[in-house]
Amino acid sequence: MKLNLDRSLKTPLYLQIRSQIRLLILTNELPSGYRLPPERKLATLLGVNRTTVVNAYHELVADGLIRSHVGKGSTVNSLQTIQHSLEGSSNTIRAEAQPVPVQPISWQNFYTSQSKRMHNPVLASILDEISNEDRISFALGSPAGEYYPLKELNEICQEIIRPGNWKAFEYASTIGHYPLRQYLANWFNSQGIDTNPQEILITSGSQQGLDLLTKVFLEPGDYVVMEEPSFLGAIGVFKSSGAHILTVPLDEEGLRTDVLEQILSRHRPKFIYTLPTFQNPTGTTMSLERRHQLLKLAYQFHIPIVEDDPYSELYYGEKSLPSLKSFDEHEHVIYLGTFSKMLFPGLRLGWCIAPSQLLEQLSLAKQHVDLHSSTTTQWIMTEFCNRGLLDIHLPLVRNHYKLQRDAMIAALEEYAPEGLSWTIPTGGYYIWCQLPQEMKATALLTKAAEKKVAFVPGNAFYVNSGGRSCIRLCFSRHSTSTIREGIFRLCRAISELINQPHLDRKTLQPHFREPLV
Amino acid sequence: MKLNLDRSLKTPLYLQIRSQIRLLILTNELPSGYRLPPERKLATLLGVNRTTVVNAYHELVADGLIRSHVGKGSTVNSLQTIQHSLEGSSNTIRAEAQPVPVQPISWQNFYTSQSKRMHNPVLASILDEISNEDRISFALGSPAGEYYPLKELNEICQEIIRPGNWKAFEYASTIGHYPLRQYLANWFNSQGIDTNPQEILITSGSQQGLDLLTKVFLEPGDYVVMEEPSFLGAIGVFKSSGAHILTVPLDEEGLRTDVLEQILSRHRPKFIYTLPTFQNPTGTTMSLERRHQLLKLAYQFHIPIVEDDPYSELYYGEKSLPSLKSFDEHEHVIYLGTFSKMLFPGLRLGWCIAPSQLLEQLSLAKQHVDLHSSTTTQWIMTEFCNRGLLDIHLPLVRNHYKLQRDAMIAALEEYAPEGLSWTIPTGGYYIWCQLPQEMKATALLTKAAEKKVAFVPGNAFYVNSGGRSCIRLCFSRHSTSTIREGIFRLCRAISELINQPHLDRKTLQPHFREPLV
Repeated sequence: MKLNLDRSLKTPLYLQIRSQIRLLILTNELPSGYRLPPERKLATLLGVNRTTVVNAYHELVADGLIRSHVGKGSTVNSLQTIQHSLEGSSNTIRAEAQPVPVQPISWQNFYTSQSKRMHNPVLASILDEISNEDRISFALGSPAGEYYPLKELNEICQEIIRPGNWKAFEYASTIGHYPLRQYLANWFNSQGIDTNPQEILITSGSQQGLDLLTKVFLEPGDYVVMEEPSFLGAIGVFKSSGAHILTVPLDEEGLRTDVLEQILSRHRPKFIYTLPTFQNPTGTTMSLERRHQLLKLAYQFHIPIVEDDPYSELYYGEKSLPSLKSFDEHEHVIYLGTFSKMLFPGLRLGWCIAPSQLLEQLSLAKQHVDLHSSTTTQWIMTEFCNRGLLDIHLPLVRNHYKLQRDAMIAALEEYAPEGLSWTIPTGGYYIWCQLPQEMKATALLTKAAEKKVAFVPGNAFYVNSGGRSCIRLCFSRHSTSTIREGIFRLCRAISELINQPHLDRKTLQPHFREPLV
Repeated sequence: MKLNLDRSLKTPLYLQIRSQIRLLILTNELPSGYRLPPERKLATLLGVNRTTVVNAYHELVADGLIRSHVGKGSTVNSLQTIQHSLEGSSNTIRAEAQPVPVQPISWQNFYTSQSKRMHNPVLASILDEISNEDRISFALGSPAGEYYPLKELNEICQEIIRPGNWKAFEYASTIGHYPLRQYLANWFNSQGIDTNPQEILITSGSQQGLDLLTKVFLEPGDYVVMEEPSFLGAIGVFKSSGAHILTVPLDEEGLRTDVLEQILSRHRPKFIYTLPTFQNPTGTTMSLERRHQLLKLAYQFHIPIVEDDPYSELYYGEKSLPSLKSFDEHEHVIYLGTFSKMLFPGLRLGWCIAPSQLLEQLSLAKQHVDLHSSTTTQWIMTEFCNRGLLDIHLPLVRNHYKLQRDAMIAALEEYAPEGLSWTIPTGGYYIWCQLPQEMKATALLTKAAEKKVAFVPGNAFYVNSGGRSCIRLCFSRHSTSTIREGIFRLCRAISELINQPHLDRKTLQPHFREPLV
């Protein structure tokens, strides 16, 4: 209880004490049943005569706000009594006793520390570009809409969404639709991953897999290891957990296992997160040797690996290297996959492959989160896969995306100003560029917006600082001619910024709107 | 570093020390770079001569496991050096230097405290009954499949899932499909709720709304208030947060606001969770007066209310009372809704209405969780609603469910043994029964399984203990004749258990399988 007396006022001190305590009671700062300090003690604290406090308490008793009992001291009345007194009291009091106006809730005062750690990994200013027809956006990592196999899906829906087939609209098991898990198990068996439907959890996209793993493994004080730069959805959810993120740099062979070893000899992380094949954002693929080294370290230090693998089916030359999971003989690798990049993201279906004991815990977490993923979309996807349509679809999109990658590389070779360098990925969606002269990517964003072209600035993929003069370009969404035009505009923007270095200070401010992947 | 010397062994002490430290190094208990205790200190600790330790360290240096520097003491070598030494060493050493076998990970050692607080609110033994054709289950709270408007949905899907309309399969905004939020805003405006699309977040079922609110509001040490008994999905997710759950009993007018007032005068919860209309599991509806009292308390104590409202459209007499949200003039009520009970649950679509500041935080949390709910199912549901089909569907199902409720009540009146009592809900799905003679519901479960009938035991809806001789019956899934037969079987089971009270000790064990709602 904190009171501030102002001796310069004409209001007697006892009335100041009375009105301040009154306010504290009516705003519930002093709840019903609260015991006020003994008169003598409060008098000493405030530096007033005891009689002043006695008089103040006396008034509060008369107001019906507190009651005094010899030997028990003074306590705040119940709200009913207070309400009653307020209603029945004299005009003078009533004027003072206007009901406390209801204040709107200051929501942020109610938030958890986890909630306060959630930061927006999204640059809406970029995504706004997407809806703008005359802008060419290389920002969003999404498949091209014109490749979606909608004719086939339409036929499947006519079969599944029909009177009588109400099971496709019911509640279902948390772990996921059995035939879909069966399909995935067979598919991964054929890729050398020894698994079965009991080890596969269907998730609402692989982002949900990351969230469930975070829920099950990470809490404040924990350590987690990830390569850097990395997928911004993973950075966001790991950060929100309050765990310390230890980062390992990448080179052209992927995650630097020598650095990882140094880290593991000092810290005991809950898991190592890696995206070994056609990495987001750099396009890097981890070499075979590194894959073995990484697994060896995981075994040696007894640390699980989370392998995020959305892009491995999108290879533009040789079939991609086997997944870490396929080498894993000691159940150390948790594998995340999704249909979002090879088919389309709108059904929100992915999966997590994990040892059955862990899978049960992840399922339990998912049950709390959303009960289960959509029954209907799982049935549709199962039918799509079982008809062999995924096997037909993949070669088609590989072919398209390869041409788009080639067009982007060719345009970069043709238009790039001096000092701009880039990676040449053998699969996936992304080209990672280093800007010339340590140019700030956020400054380039402004300039590029004028030229009607967009990308993601590199710092979005870093845990702390870093990547400020890198940019990620996604070549999946546009035709080869549009890609060529977009790169032309981008290179013009870079060139102009080289000649106007003072513009480097103008940067766009991130602002929340849509998810960026 | 802990060593245990055994003086009864023939092995010299220095070799015991050597082999124990060796094991600690190879299993990484003593990581690379670890500084071993000075020889003199270790000798004192072990009660041996200093020479014994000197000899042991000397052997370890020779093994390539540690290195000694004058003045710096002895430190564990890098793993590369160790590996190298092991490979190059003599046969004798090599035999000893078998690679440490990789142990499988004990996953539970990696789990967070939140994860350990997740308990399975599901009785799979009951749900197994559902798939069993000749059993009649009153357990699952789900709409009846034969009422699903699948013909209409089929037509809608032919329109939405077609070549060219790839936008329905893209990534979309986290907050949800705008036309769906617009429809919901209009719908709720017509019900007296003053809202707009910026205050509506589309969720993957209302379970996700509960999870997001938990993430944003609840952490260990917090308080949350809920009526008891209550929805088990809410109990589960609140418990997992580590918050203290304060429970308020229900009477026939709903949540006891007098008890709530007592609680609020002592604690400051993050929010009050209530399901005021056709409550799960009791079927109770909060009276108008209580609704006003509850809001008044929320304003007075400045505590948000979470109103969960899945059943209010399923009324079987007068239209249900206005929602708390519709009375709320000071933005204290967060409203959760879902299509799962009035249409079907398999699309996993619900919504959360909240003040825009809070909604932004909830959207940010959802972005971390699953980016957004399925674009495709949102488009389908929007078209369904915009064609006016929800308005056509609701009167049909109200009519069906009313007949089913009447059939269940009539059967109870006809077959109930003495001492069995039940509620008569005016809407929703559930009848709440009190068993005679304090019979244990879990014991009745076994007996009922013999008779091929199932229900949910009451204790599932309690935070701690309670409800042990209550059961929840759901009348939504079966025809009136099946309901009659099911209640006949159930009453037979109760009667038999009355005559065989020793069976009361046999109870079924819960075991994880499927979500229960």
